[in-house]
Amino acid sequence: MRTAFTELVGVEHPLVGFNRAPAVVVEVSRAGALGVLGATMYTPEQLDARLTWMDEQLAGRPYGVDLLVPGSVGAVDGGGVPPEHRDFVEGLLADHGIPPLPADAQLDRTGRIDISLETNMDAQVVHELLEVTFSHRVALVASALGTPPPEMVARARAAGVPVAALVGTGEHARRQLAAGVDVLVAQGTEGGGHTGNVATMVLTPEVVDLAGDVPVLAAGGIATGRQLAAALALGAAGAWTGSVWLSSLEDPAAGVIKEKLLTARSTDTVVSPTRTGKPARQLRSAWLDAWGRPGAPSPLPMPWQSTLVREAWERIDLAAEAGDARARELESFFVGQVVGTFTELRPAGEIVRDIVAGCEQRLRELGGVAARDVAG
Amino acid sequence: MRTAFTELVGVEHPLVGFNRAPAVVVEVSRAGALGVLGATMYTPEQLDARLTWMDEQLAGRPYGVDLLVPGSVGAVDGGGVPPEHRDFVEGLLADHGIPPLPADAQLDRTGRIDISLETNMDAQVVHELLEVTFSHRVALVASALGTPPPEMVARARAAGVPVAALVGTGEHARRQLAAGVDVLVAQGTEGGGHTGNVATMVLTPEVVDLAGDVPVLAAGGIATGRQLAAALALGAAGAWTGSVWLSSLEDPAAGVIKEKLLTARSTDTVVSPTRTGKPARQLRSAWLDAWGRPGAPSPLPMPWQSTLVREAWERIDLAAEAGDARARELESFFVGQVVGTFTELRPAGEIVRDIVAGCEQRLRELGGVAARDVAG
Repeated sequence: MRTAFTELVGVEHPLVGFNRAPAVVVEVSRAGALGVLGATMYTPEQLDARLTWMDEQLAGRPYGVDLLVPGSVGAVDGGGVPPEHRDFVEGLLADHGIPPLPADAQLDRTGRIDISLETNMDAQVVHELLEVTFSHRVALVASALGTPPPEMVARARAAGVPVAALVGTGEHARRQLAAGVDVLVAQGTEGGGHTGNVATMVLTPEVVDLAGDVPVLAAGGIATGRQLAAALALGAAGAWTGSVWLSSLEDPAAGVIKEKLLTARSTDTVVSPTRTGKPARQLRSAWLDAWGRPGAPSPLPMPWQSTLVREAWERIDLAAEAGDARARELESFFVGQVVGTFTELRPAGEIVRDIVAGCEQRLRELGGVAARDVAG
Repeated sequence: MRTAFTELVGVEHPLVGFNRAPAVVVEVSRAGALGVLGATMYTPEQLDARLTWMDEQLAGRPYGVDLLVPGSVGAVDGGGVPPEHRDFVEGLLADHGIPPLPADAQLDRTGRIDISLETNMDAQVVHELLEVTFSHRVALVASALGTPPPEMVARARAAGVPVAALVGTGEHARRQLAAGVDVLVAQGTEGGGHTGNVATMVLTPEVVDLAGDVPVLAAGGIATGRQLAAALALGAAGAWTGSVWLSSLEDPAAGVIKEKLLTARSTDTVVSPTRTGKPARQLRSAWLDAWGRPGAPSPLPMPWQSTLVREAWERIDLAAEAGDARARELESFFVGQVVGTFTELRPAGEIVRDIVAGCEQRLRELGGVAARDVAG
């Protein structure tokens, strides 16, 4: 399948696979789609090491890097974390009997962070992450939240690397186009992680009509060939997928999370700002329920909500992985409504091949429909 | 375009157009789609007169009837309307300076009701509405809310009329299939009126996989040919559309509502139970904002919320139509996220032709994509 997007980044299939683990990204790119590494929680040195490994593995096949770069780098207003918020979180953990972190806890934060939704707000670190990114053979650099800062667009231009940006409304799309991005990712409300209110079915054609010659990827609700075919029908030049890779064998999520993902239904996600300070879709759990009860505090704005809850989530994750049933009740993960389709863990390369084959078959069937029958 | 749905009901195009006005339904059916009349708020005599007129106009072309028949006819629990709820609504109207109804107000409730979302709970009336419906040449009878009662399915079987039912989750679909329905309408969260949380992109293939040989229509987020093509790509045998007909010239909504619909964006709808007691998507307005404020009462269950707010909405509608700016702030309407695409009022027949032509063109383009380029 050839589209404006496959031409732009030089891949076989109009499909992006986003994941925080280099092993998943490499398998997605090897199978002919574009793997994109969620790189926000890496230090510049860690990112450099991972991209060096990916360059070796992929031997020239294209991949991308996603940085959660705030539009106004470094411009964090005051605020902080009020004591009543700390008390609420401590009380919630105490109610569930979650132990404190052991004194000798070895926390590999880059390995544990859910889906790169925390923000590195330090301007110097962001600058270094961009320098590292552009020192490798990246085919696409993405900005997952807000308009990419002019520095990022200028550096990408100089390096000849297209810039992609996620948008959740027509207004976002207009701002991103004005900022000079090369690919728009229209993320519908059904998607995992940070998301808006407009569904993919409505948002995609709206953004396509605004984008003119700029290719648009549909995101949210896409995990199968039929859904990729629907994205193309809506006018997209391909699909950006995230959640489906959580069902890959290569994804590093803990067993307790994988088990929750494999048993969840499409109705088992909710949108909540209680992890990062911005609305993000995730598995429903006792954590989300507690924040919705009368008397619960309002979540803090980004980045303070992350600051507030980071250690709490390290404690929940550790206890849940150790088999604690009450911790398992709290456990959650950023994921979209397609979680209801997960039935088993499969190799990432097989997922790519199934999506592509299913889409190609559906497109052939649809081509015959205007004149004749369609299955259904 | 031929699908399992077009074969079942005998229409040219895999497209259903739902509206409360016989004039819209007739134009949709004349253009080769299936017009479906939302008939809940009619008395049996009124429904008989309208279906008689439609039979004359359509001269044998198929149309359908949608009845909001509760699964447990007549089984309304006690409850009623608490005084603090009445006080809240009166206070809200007073804050906006909405006058009481004039003593001589001529209220044509069948003409005014927004989108047939109120429920006739009287078992005898429901029985009579079914008798009237099956005495006409209906090609489809639909149950908009909940599982159709056994009486409805049995009467339809005897009359040889297929029964369609709206579903918002896989669980709903299983129950409807067990009840023996002939068509499932998978309504995504982006749709107008009563709706669930799962988006069309995710819900449609989930319901298709459960439905086996039973045809599925996708609903929610569909107003253009590209979106109909996407529905077919997802495995649907067609689309059920409602909101787009509010942008038809034949739709009887008041000028103030048409104006709000034509200027709304896709982000301007919210899901709220404050009109009927069940979550329904509608235009954001001061009415919705007021119910979301601290201290506002929780909406009542169906049917008591309708009882509570019916006269309030008659007052709001009358004042808004008379040009009252504060009433216009409160004014709302049941509509889906596709409202953002409305730019002008057009004849309903032209809307059908545009959707069908756009879909056929997109399907032809997609047919060539597996091997070659796709626009986008």
